[in-house]
Amino acid sequence: MTSPARFIYNRSEGSKDRMIEKKALRELVARLGKDKVFSEAEYLLAYSYDATGLEYLPDAVVFAESEADVEAVITLCRRHSLPLVPRGAGVGYTGGALAVRGGVVLVFTRMNRILKVDSGDLLAVVEPGVVTSDLQAAAEKIGLFYPPDPASLKTSTIGGNVAENAGGPRCFKYGVTGNYVLGLDAYLMSGEKIRLGTETIKNVAGYDLKSLLIGSEGTLAVVTRVTLRLLPLPPRRLLFRVDFASLADGARFVQRIIQAHVQPAVLEFMDRSSLAAVHAYQRLPLGDRVRAAVLVEIDGSRAEVDEREARFREQVEKAAPVHWERAETAAEQETLWETRRAISPAIAKLKPRKINEDIVVPGGRIPEMVEFIDRLAAEHDLCIVLFGHFGDGNIHTNLMVDPGDAEEMKRAGTVLDRIFKRVVEMGGAISGEHGIGLSKKPFMSYQFSPVELELFRRIKAVFDPDNLLNPGKIF
Amino acid sequence: MTSPARFIYNRSEGSKDRMIEKKALRELVARLGKDKVFSEAEYLLAYSYDATGLEYLPDAVVFAESEADVEAVITLCRRHSLPLVPRGAGVGYTGGALAVRGGVVLVFTRMNRILKVDSGDLLAVVEPGVVTSDLQAAAEKIGLFYPPDPASLKTSTIGGNVAENAGGPRCFKYGVTGNYVLGLDAYLMSGEKIRLGTETIKNVAGYDLKSLLIGSEGTLAVVTRVTLRLLPLPPRRLLFRVDFASLADGARFVQRIIQAHVQPAVLEFMDRSSLAAVHAYQRLPLGDRVRAAVLVEIDGSRAEVDEREARFREQVEKAAPVHWERAETAAEQETLWETRRAISPAIAKLKPRKINEDIVVPGGRIPEMVEFIDRLAAEHDLCIVLFGHFGDGNIHTNLMVDPGDAEEMKRAGTVLDRIFKRVVEMGGAISGEHGIGLSKKPFMSYQFSPVELELFRRIKAVFDPDNLLNPGKIF
Repeated sequence: MTSPARFIYNRSEGSKDRMIEKKALRELVARLGKDKVFSEAEYLLAYSYDATGLEYLPDAVVFAESEADVEAVITLCRRHSLPLVPRGAGVGYTGGALAVRGGVVLVFTRMNRILKVDSGDLLAVVEPGVVTSDLQAAAEKIGLFYPPDPASLKTSTIGGNVAENAGGPRCFKYGVTGNYVLGLDAYLMSGEKIRLGTETIKNVAGYDLKSLLIGSEGTLAVVTRVTLRLLPLPPRRLLFRVDFASLADGARFVQRIIQAHVQPAVLEFMDRSSLAAVHAYQRLPLGDRVRAAVLVEIDGSRAEVDEREARFREQVEKAAPVHWERAETAAEQETLWETRRAISPAIAKLKPRKINEDIVVPGGRIPEMVEFIDRLAAEHDLCIVLFGHFGDGNIHTNLMVDPGDAEEMKRAGTVLDRIFKRVVEMGGAISGEHGIGLSKKPFMSYQFSPVELELFRRIKAVFDPDNLLNPGKIF
Repeated sequence: MTSPARFIYNRSEGSKDRMIEKKALRELVARLGKDKVFSEAEYLLAYSYDATGLEYLPDAVVFAESEADVEAVITLCRRHSLPLVPRGAGVGYTGGALAVRGGVVLVFTRMNRILKVDSGDLLAVVEPGVVTSDLQAAAEKIGLFYPPDPASLKTSTIGGNVAENAGGPRCFKYGVTGNYVLGLDAYLMSGEKIRLGTETIKNVAGYDLKSLLIGSEGTLAVVTRVTLRLLPLPPRRLLFRVDFASLADGARFVQRIIQAHVQPAVLEFMDRSSLAAVHAYQRLPLGDRVRAAVLVEIDGSRAEVDEREARFREQVEKAAPVHWERAETAAEQETLWETRRAISPAIAKLKPRKINEDIVVPGGRIPEMVEFIDRLAAEHDLCIVLFGHFGDGNIHTNLMVDPGDAEEMKRAGTVLDRIFKRVVEMGGAISGEHGIGLSKKPFMSYQFSPVELELFRRIKAVFDPDNLLNPGKIF
């Protein structure tokens, strides 16, 4: 994955003036101590990449352990005009945590304390380096629930989730990360601290800068503390897999269960391509007639789940699917989830590289979009695997390619371009979960007008006039 | 309520150069037609005030009927450097819709079409002048639910709700207006249109300008269309009133039902002062020992409500209140709600004027805050009536005063100042529902640092560099 030649290339591209950085580095070490500041090659290499496959070498890696550390790093970066790139677990899909112009990568994994989980006020206060599943576990221990569930939840951090406004399968019922953020403490590149939001659900004083920071991909301010809303933990969950002869049948079924007010927490779909890959990978038979699968999770109290299951089964009977199954125990549910989670390793076998997009279209138009993409794939001789979140219109679109095949890469570019244009025509969004970062910058002008893009740039300048904080991202 | 002398005073204060405005007015009429543009005294008077009791005379009142009208008014205001003040129903508590510097009041009550209510994608698309309860009725007709319920819902508009990020009793379970806004179409003062958000729950492309506009009190852009998320309508509701010997007892009870995961939709409280006023007003006896009442609404499906009621009753038994009652039918529930809604007319009898604040503190600290305010009221010989939303810490704080009594007004000012300072010390917010507008400007520096206030000003300048859109509000 790491090629030294590539690093050197990127390094020289990223940062020109090595003398200034040497001085900055000495000051960083003097200020923070040797155990937090690293410029050895192995550290620079280890923090040069994320899940995009892109690599950019920083000049230094700093592990913050406190707000004072963050403030010190900001002050030094400003003084030396060094780019500063905040980084959580570094598992992003769009390059948000990459030091494209060199500078300091500020890693938050050591600021991972859960400061409070409060069952009276239903909230948690955490440092940004807390791993999402650790917060979920801490909440569950006292009967509470932190719903956002990005696929990366066992590695990704709350800070990263806030930076990308992370979603996940449960967002249809529960909303995205931003719906749970009550307050943020953050530092501006001026070194000044701001406190946004409160510990309360209601707060309408001043402009909502908290929401502006959520999803801003670490380009406006450096978040050092997050206050999150929690819910009571639903005591019961049921999971179903329903197989259909076409994705259109699956989509009609989904519309029906939405209209029957089943209110599922999860409404996932796998199309023919992902089912084929997963069943081959898991060496499981796949019925001839199965062309789409829908995963449905119902959660709530015991009586509530019973009632919703009854409504759900009525719709299953009406829809007459090819096959369906029900998972009651945790082990049964895990087996069903395994199929969904096996998509990534399964399709990794298909081609050397995955171009991983997360387009969004209005829920009702998923079959139309999937058909459009299937046709494009056939026309341009590409392998495209689709799966995603039916409830919220989020289609994970994986173009499986070989970077060594220039001709194929070119065709992939053409197809991607047409997909993004179609998404915007349908009133959708070019990213539902992963953000823009580096990899989707070229498509921003499809979704946003020049006026809107100019507003983004001017807001960036309000927060970070010298463009030092995570530069080169979004626009 | 309207004093001509006062209007003339305000008018001369608001706008100096009458010649320019005459020309602007002629152009407005030429462009929009006589039936949309008014400068007759009765119109200017009718649109000069809101629920604050403050009055400012505009130079013209324009009733927009389309986006083209809005664009035309913006263009003319910019050309003539005239302030533009968007206005919904004009029922705000903080002066957000008042033309403090004269100019054009742009009224949205004619743009009141519900363009779509979609039971498949669970959303509605509306013009900003739609009255909130009209949208709720349209949604309920097809089994859907628009949860935000500001007390003004029968008069206030969706546009006004978005401008103030309106709350209401149900926000504890369901969140505020902003949690339901999927997309906004709006015009900048440059005359350019922006489209923010999508018809989808997930959308992480670019900065979240949609959320920035929500609660910005009409100071950043003029909203012309709103896409709102809907939920399935809960088929059943139960309402309870539980009376306690002290507010602290009530608070403990509320904490217990939160921890028992009753998940009520509504958790209202009335303190001794509001109970006394309402019971006197309704000529109902109030038990000697009753010092606080808690209103609890449980909603959901039949089985769900049964289950939650059982958990709720367990807590009622443990808490041993002075008295409690249960309302099952709509009529019974209406009677209980009547008491809560009668607070405003009841306390209006106490004094000529109500200074109506909506402070927020963390839920668990309500009894402490109420005690603090009671002590202040006694020390400064003031009548202060308290009620509010227990679940989300929102305390409606009504200082009942006589504007003719300069001494009392001065004492009220002193007390208000101390209340806001205490709110901020407790980590709360100076406004939970009403916004800042004019009346809370003096207290912004209590909640926000100079750095944060400067960010607000610079964001305002990004959107409206000439400060023509609803000037003089927030800061």
